[in-house]
Amino acid sequence: MKISELSDRSGVPIATIKFYLREGLLAPGAALNARESAYDETHLRRLRVIRGLVQVTGASIEQVRQLMAIIEMPGQSAIEVVGRASTALSARQAAASGTPDTQEAEGLLTRLGVSFAAESENLRLLASALELAGQVGLSPSDDQLAVYVQAAREVARADFARVPWDDPQQAAEWAVLGTALYEPISSALRRLAHSELAGRLDQAHPEATPDR
Amino acid sequence: MKISELSDRSGVPIATIKFYLREGLLAPGAALNARESAYDETHLRRLRVIRGLVQVTGASIEQVRQLMAIIEMPGQSAIEVVGRASTALSARQAAASGTPDTQEAEGLLTRLGVSFAAESENLRLLASALELAGQVGLSPSDDQLAVYVQAAREVARADFARVPWDDPQQAAEWAVLGTALYEPISSALRRLAHSELAGRLDQAHPEATPDR
Repeated sequence: MKISELSDRSGVPIATIKFYLREGLLAPGAALNARESAYDETHLRRLRVIRGLVQVTGASIEQVRQLMAIIEMPGQSAIEVVGRASTALSARQAAASGTPDTQEAEGLLTRLGVSFAAESENLRLLASALELAGQVGLSPSDDQLAVYVQAAREVARADFARVPWDDPQQAAEWAVLGTALYEPISSALRRLAHSELAGRLDQAHPEATPDR
Repeated sequence: MKISELSDRSGVPIATIKFYLREGLLAPGAALNARESAYDETHLRRLRVIRGLVQVTGASIEQVRQLMAIIEMPGQSAIEVVGRASTALSARQAAASGTPDTQEAEGLLTRLGVSFAAESENLRLLASALELAGQVGLSPSDDQLAVYVQAAREVARADFARVPWDDPQQAAEWAVLGTALYEPISSALRRLAHSELAGRLDQAHPEATPDR
């Protein structure tokens, strides 16, 4: 396909595609003549992944390059590449949130029976989030977090059931993009569940609404 | 307490407290003399809420003012104020994500048996997130989302169990700050659950790691 069709099918503007080509994020197409090249489905797929990384994770071109290098490193098993790609994504976000004290988060995960790697980037993300909640005086309780952990495990199992494990590279794309793309879906559903529950409380317990 | 103690206990710099006082977000303290005022626990609590809103939701001063006005409107029941405050928070974020087509999200929620208000801001948040996933070619399946919905409901019940319903104003603070503060906690736990599951798969099914 020509660059115009690649743009139509991916939704990425031609100027942006040319920029990715110059930056080497996208391999050149096969030259058709002095001015035009032909692109195939591998270009389209890669373009969608690059676009997803930029739009969803807010990654810079350099960070996309690093993530793609991890995803495309040959000779990795699906589990290995998924682990590396996820760590790289979390590392970028954990770096933005400073160096929190992870002791509270480690104690919490131990009490709740969650296994984790020391020095884990995800542990740092959790520690930052807990620290902020504590500063505002709204630390979650262990009971509450036990429900969060249980919910997270169910969601993780559902996510993993969709990963194409027989294709390590595609599995890594799923891991990185799915992690970033499904977080806002999960947050929106949590807010909808709050509204749903509030509506139910309102009907079931009019005594909780004393000012009517 | 003097402004220096208010600063120490809240973690908010004195210059920032003075800015909030000038902006009218924080009520003046009782004048002790020409240069000093005394502040009490209500100042401290309000300062923590303002700080949380700014740090966690990234709200501007004007948006904090609007949220505080909603939270503090007299004569509201807890359920009402929680609903209004949550809607205001989601509206701000939904505005940033444009005007997505909500048809797919509405169909999905109907299929999954989730009740929602038409024109809901949370529906728009969900629609934006689904649209982005679709553009990248990673639309979640109904089966997967059914698990997300179930998890969101469990989490919402655990959240509501912690809300101080007998104090409408405090309940609203919980609703707004808890919504924003606990989303990163939830995301971090989901990532930890992924790592945990990946580690288990790695041990249980060495055949899934063909390159070793």
